[in-house]
Amino acid sequence: MCAPLFEAVPNFSEGKDTAKISRITEAVRSVSDLRILGLHSDPDHNRSVLTFAGEEEPVLEGAIALAKACAAELDLASQSGEHPRMGVLDVLPFVPLEGATMEDAVRLAHRAGESLGLLGFPVFLYGAAATSQHRRSLPDVRRGGYEGVSSRLQDPLWKPDYGPRILDPRTGALAVGARPYLVAFNAYLDTDDVEVARAVAREVRESGGGLAAVRALGFGVGGRAQVSMNLTDLEQTPIPVALEAVRSAAAGLGATVESTELVGLAPLEALLQTARYYLGLRELEADHVLESRLYGPSDSLSL
Amino acid sequence: MCAPLFEAVPNFSEGKDTAKISRITEAVRSVSDLRILGLHSDPDHNRSVLTFAGEEEPVLEGAIALAKACAAELDLASQSGEHPRMGVLDVLPFVPLEGATMEDAVRLAHRAGESLGLLGFPVFLYGAAATSQHRRSLPDVRRGGYEGVSSRLQDPLWKPDYGPRILDPRTGALAVGARPYLVAFNAYLDTDDVEVARAVAREVRESGGGLAAVRALGFGVGGRAQVSMNLTDLEQTPIPVALEAVRSAAAGLGATVESTELVGLAPLEALLQTARYYLGLRELEADHVLESRLYGPSDSLSL
Repeated sequence: MCAPLFEAVPNFSEGKDTAKISRITEAVRSVSDLRILGLHSDPDHNRSVLTFAGEEEPVLEGAIALAKACAAELDLASQSGEHPRMGVLDVLPFVPLEGATMEDAVRLAHRAGESLGLLGFPVFLYGAAATSQHRRSLPDVRRGGYEGVSSRLQDPLWKPDYGPRILDPRTGALAVGARPYLVAFNAYLDTDDVEVARAVAREVRESGGGLAAVRALGFGVGGRAQVSMNLTDLEQTPIPVALEAVRSAAAGLGATVESTELVGLAPLEALLQTARYYLGLRELEADHVLESRLYGPSDSLSL
Repeated sequence: MCAPLFEAVPNFSEGKDTAKISRITEAVRSVSDLRILGLHSDPDHNRSVLTFAGEEEPVLEGAIALAKACAAELDLASQSGEHPRMGVLDVLPFVPLEGATMEDAVRLAHRAGESLGLLGFPVFLYGAAATSQHRRSLPDVRRGGYEGVSSRLQDPLWKPDYGPRILDPRTGALAVGARPYLVAFNAYLDTDDVEVARAVAREVRESGGGLAAVRALGFGVGGRAQVSMNLTDLEQTPIPVALEAVRSAAAGLGATVESTELVGLAPLEALLQTARYYLGLRELEADHVLESRLYGPSDSLSL
């Protein structure tokens, strides 16, 4: 038996002041049995995205430490940024990793929401953790932003799931959610015609009647047409299925895929899906991978 | 920086007596910082294959503990088995894993050979650790087996690399080597005609002028023709290249590959090669895999 693992991908409203960002990150790093996987700070949006992972208790502890550090370091009343936001710790999604189900992540989101509510943050649950349909989509939950959230808290439809209905103007409100792992995957075409990439993107994305859980846009990058995709649920659409749809749509326009790239990390499951799809390795699972045995939870190794 | 990792895949000459096998395995398991990845005992061949892995020092310590346990538990003078063998601990190959090179594995084979020689085993180095060309192939080193090794030790061409030139008849001699990771990969065809599998195997294997570092045989398994492959060096021939050769050879005979299977484990690198090959993910490396970051050596995780 292996303890379920989770990833947290919090967004906080500071992307310029490196001393503050460092102190906020250190608060999470000081939690035992937690791994920090990435930090991306965007000065233009004045916003940072921190990624950390571990078992349920350390991840919960890390989220609480992060919220306290954001509240201590940041003041939204005197802050500005281009990106829509409603709190110093703005969004806190939990992602189920190896051994964890979406139900586990929803339970973790509720536990985190309850703790952060007690700390004084009004908390809206979103995504798979949403308590009603109109709160599932993050853009819907965040509509009106910091400037609008004070009056929204008085709307019966937007009573927070946890925490007070009165806003502390320094710290604002917070969306806590559960969602599948998101893979950012780009395909480069053998053309510089951005219109081809845009047409391919329209054909493959869910909003255009294409593949489930695929968002796609066409760009020109380094003289090449790029189809930039977010795969928001690999169970619904794995990487190989998305790529073959891009290849097919591109072929219809006389183009081919020259190369691809991952932005950020992909879960091992994405590679297993790829090997199953192209190699026909139907029974392939993570425990057939040597390194999973070497590095994974040791209980799985008894003979 | 991550400490180089190694795998050892020793074969010892006991496959029936489960109490003895268990005591021998326990001797290795008692070594700290070592992971036992598998044990396969074959009563017909009266032989077991143990797989364990870790950093250099624990792997070396595990090999020495194993040799001592085999010498204490087994007596080759009173043992019989179908499989060619020449010692109680018969073959001890070291395989470089993540962070290790073949040169590292050769050095480890020399260190193990020296220690086992001091324990009284005549040791022949083979594979990449061989000290001369005629000792590279394991079948060549083992030719004549236990029954022939006593006189062979007196042949100047077969002076052992380490240890005495006089055989202890209870424990015999030992081949210690270094080799790449071996992947056992089978393809099932949509025919029950074993001759088709045999023809495909002849076409793709190295000995028939096919792919480098590929051994292949055709079998009938469960009413299906099976092409059974050993890929002995994934750098020379990765799984996707071997499979596409099988698909192409099968197509020439009117057959297709219905499914495939791994026997035992594959290294993560095999999945990375597969994703690079089919997805065009040219830059893909192990540190793009979330679980490598989570479970791998923690030094790679600092921001």
